[in-house]
Amino acid sequence: MTYCVGLMLERGLVMMSDTRTNAGVDNISTFRKMFTWEKPGDRALVLMTAGNLATTQSVVSILDERTKAHGERDPSLFEVPSMFQAARLVARTLKDVIAAHADVGQRADAAFNATLILGGQIKGGAPRLFLIYPEGNFIEAGDDTPFFQIGETKYGRPILVRAYDPAMSFEKAVKLMLVSFDSTLKANLSVGMPFDLQVYEADSLQLGRRIRIRAHDPYFEQISTGWGEELKSALDSLPDFEF
Amino acid sequence: MTYCVGLMLERGLVMMSDTRTNAGVDNISTFRKMFTWEKPGDRALVLMTAGNLATTQSVVSILDERTKAHGERDPSLFEVPSMFQAARLVARTLKDVIAAHADVGQRADAAFNATLILGGQIKGGAPRLFLIYPEGNFIEAGDDTPFFQIGETKYGRPILVRAYDPAMSFEKAVKLMLVSFDSTLKANLSVGMPFDLQVYEADSLQLGRRIRIRAHDPYFEQISTGWGEELKSALDSLPDFEF
Repeated sequence: MTYCVGLMLERGLVMMSDTRTNAGVDNISTFRKMFTWEKPGDRALVLMTAGNLATTQSVVSILDERTKAHGERDPSLFEVPSMFQAARLVARTLKDVIAAHADVGQRADAAFNATLILGGQIKGGAPRLFLIYPEGNFIEAGDDTPFFQIGETKYGRPILVRAYDPAMSFEKAVKLMLVSFDSTLKANLSVGMPFDLQVYEADSLQLGRRIRIRAHDPYFEQISTGWGEELKSALDSLPDFEF
Repeated sequence: MTYCVGLMLERGLVMMSDTRTNAGVDNISTFRKMFTWEKPGDRALVLMTAGNLATTQSVVSILDERTKAHGERDPSLFEVPSMFQAARLVARTLKDVIAAHADVGQRADAAFNATLILGGQIKGGAPRLFLIYPEGNFIEAGDDTPFFQIGETKYGRPILVRAYDPAMSFEKAVKLMLVSFDSTLKANLSVGMPFDLQVYEADSLQLGRRIRIRAHDPYFEQISTGWGEELKSALDSLPDFEF
């Protein structure tokens, strides 16, 4: 499994992904699940992947080759005129890769599925955030649902639902995401460190800070320990049930 | 879906279950998922159910009929000499019911599956808590894993993992469970109020308080609102990330 979160804030986008892949509990590896494309002053795109690793690597390779091979007739991520067209391109690539490897048997394609989060901005448009499904369709984050999660989403969802605020700073958003990742990490072996963090500042049209948060990172350990203590004292500060 | 939690404490057992059943989002109902058997001074048993409603109702009916029909040759929950034997009886009943209704087709039995939590005490033994699988086998809670969840378990798990303490009072345990149920309720439509709460005090050999917590219960609303605020201030009290 995997855990990735993309947050749409007033200041821009914050994306975070874990790096654990597994085929069974005795076959685990570390792979980057966050990929970026940038043409400063024109566009910055961040893609996060969950699902079959062969599928997601293939999708990224195809998208990369398209951006490199100049004679290619298909539009590339560096040429599409809008984020909506970028999402369509990524979604079509994903659908094609799954279809190419899926067997003809019933349900056989499920194992090759993947789900993606695409965020970024292209000159002339606003920052946008999309959740792309294996069927090749996608939805966009709006005011009512301003963040997307993919992978092992349930453990880390309650804190996002309750503490997310579109006006929050990048520094606070990263803290919130680390709490959400920590809750997931504590409950599910298929999500693992290090985490990749990418910030995109609205209208900058270039990628912002990109940081890898490794195991034993002092700030993460402080958040993880501190959050456990804060939760206990939060529980203590509420009145006990009375029979 | 469903959400049920059974906590093993030093003082005894606390069990809580929701009451929502659904076959699709447009076919929801309210059914009790908690069932008890009691012979004061001799035994007290609490069963919680998750899964196919026809299966779990059938299991409970069979267990009930066995306790009523005196000429029956099978052992009943009122006659088994230990909690282990009670768990075996319930597990065998569950397995038989699933087998009786399962089609011969591949995977056809999955839809009739159910998972159960059985807790209680029979004279001569200690209080015990079991998680019973649809295959008819089961595991017992111990010091390392002192609680079980069934149904929609993920949203409400982080707070249980972090705040559970075997020495906690019943009053605090109910508060903890309501926080866990509230996180689940906020994230998943298939879990719904009212909640059923059953307390069993160790060595009392009779059922303790049984309470139904309904929608708009003032204490639950206080916990739900208060927890949201506490979470936000807990997050505020941790240091922000620094780039």
